[in-house]
Amino acid sequence: MHICFIIAMEAEAASLIEKFSLDEVTHFASGLPMWAWSGLQGADQISVVVNGKDADYNLDLIGTQAATLSTHLAINHFKPDMIISAGTAGAFQSKGANIGDVYLSYPHVVFHDRRVDIPGWDKMGVGRFPVYDVREMALTLKLKTGVVTTGNSLDMPETDEATIRAIGGEIKEMEAAAVAWVASLHKVPMFCVKSVTDLVDSAHPTHEQFLSNLRLAVESLTEVCLKVVGYILVHKP
Amino acid sequence: MHICFIIAMEAEAASLIEKFSLDEVTHFASGLPMWAWSGLQGADQISVVVNGKDADYNLDLIGTQAATLSTHLAINHFKPDMIISAGTAGAFQSKGANIGDVYLSYPHVVFHDRRVDIPGWDKMGVGRFPVYDVREMALTLKLKTGVVTTGNSLDMPETDEATIRAIGGEIKEMEAAAVAWVASLHKVPMFCVKSVTDLVDSAHPTHEQFLSNLRLAVESLTEVCLKVVGYILVHKP
Repeated sequence: MHICFIIAMEAEAASLIEKFSLDEVTHFASGLPMWAWSGLQGADQISVVVNGKDADYNLDLIGTQAATLSTHLAINHFKPDMIISAGTAGAFQSKGANIGDVYLSYPHVVFHDRRVDIPGWDKMGVGRFPVYDVREMALTLKLKTGVVTTGNSLDMPETDEATIRAIGGEIKEMEAAAVAWVASLHKVPMFCVKSVTDLVDSAHPTHEQFLSNLRLAVESLTEVCLKVVGYILVHKP
Repeated sequence: MHICFIIAMEAEAASLIEKFSLDEVTHFASGLPMWAWSGLQGADQISVVVNGKDADYNLDLIGTQAATLSTHLAINHFKPDMIISAGTAGAFQSKGANIGDVYLSYPHVVFHDRRVDIPGWDKMGVGRFPVYDVREMALTLKLKTGVVTTGNSLDMPETDEATIRAIGGEIKEMEAAAVAWVASLHKVPMFCVKSVTDLVDSAHPTHEQFLSNLRLAVESLTEVCLKVVGYILVHKP
């Protein structure tokens, strides 16, 4: 079985790559910013694809455009059996979330910033991409589950907040729905592992919480991703 | 020379495909929704790639995720010398735009819905992707030019309007900056041809104007695209 993680930022991926002792894949996406690492775990294979850096700003590419391209390249190259969108995210303290909590996506992943007020187009905009059924896994590993909602901005103005509340979003981040869309096109099962860096409904701006909690959230993320892989390789779908 | 149009909707592309007498390209993106047409114009080649339809809703895929994938597939398949993001768009009557006006993009294409309030990341979010210098072409063909600004929603809430005004956006649409980003990764020159279906600062909702003006705007779009190709093939870059 081949499990492929799609991760936006190098800081979110580095310790996972190290823990799995993955090797860099040469010629993964020549000329494009995306990078890949891969390695065997017994008879199974684990890969990690990250978006890479913007050539002008030397900053990690984030957001749904980069996630779209990374996922397509990952599926074309590795032909994985399972895609996992992993990373850090915001969550709601009003829904009981705490910094460092790790959520699995269920029952779907949605977009909250694709508003098209024409019947049919409105629903297509939100997406509601179904994800791999993680309920047993979440129970066994004692993880929370929730609807993961994706948009290209780090903040949450009123328009986005209203959409997120209407679609029941619990985890707010910037890539998952694009990963889910591309995975669905290629018919590869997919789900998310998201670690909470910030509480989007607290008094502190998201970007300040993000920077101060990133390290803690990545530690939780790595720990849970290792457990998730262990679980999947034992309970193969 | 090979010129490749990236167009979101079939309704925007159909008459252009017919006027250029293009043939459908088989095996362009097997398993994916994107479609391509291509044909020779003398010694030069013209191609059109459209996003195709969502399998669940049977509606044209729109927005930046589909545009990202279409552009990557187009460049991989055709290795074009020039990418043109063509389609319909909104514009501002306060800046002198009228329904059916056709704009060329200059001096750049930007995102208005990627807000990340961290230094460096803020600028990377907007993008400001440079475009092919169309100033001579615009003068010759008597076309307006302006900054094309992209977001994944058809409406314009206050947050988006403030961003669009701050970055000087004149043409508001849903794909161009993603096309520009992917073209820049592959180092393919790119610009936009956008025909105005709706005035986003008028009293009428964008989606009502869009539906009633689509046919007129597509006629103008097709006419200008033919002239633009004629111009480029004479004044080869």
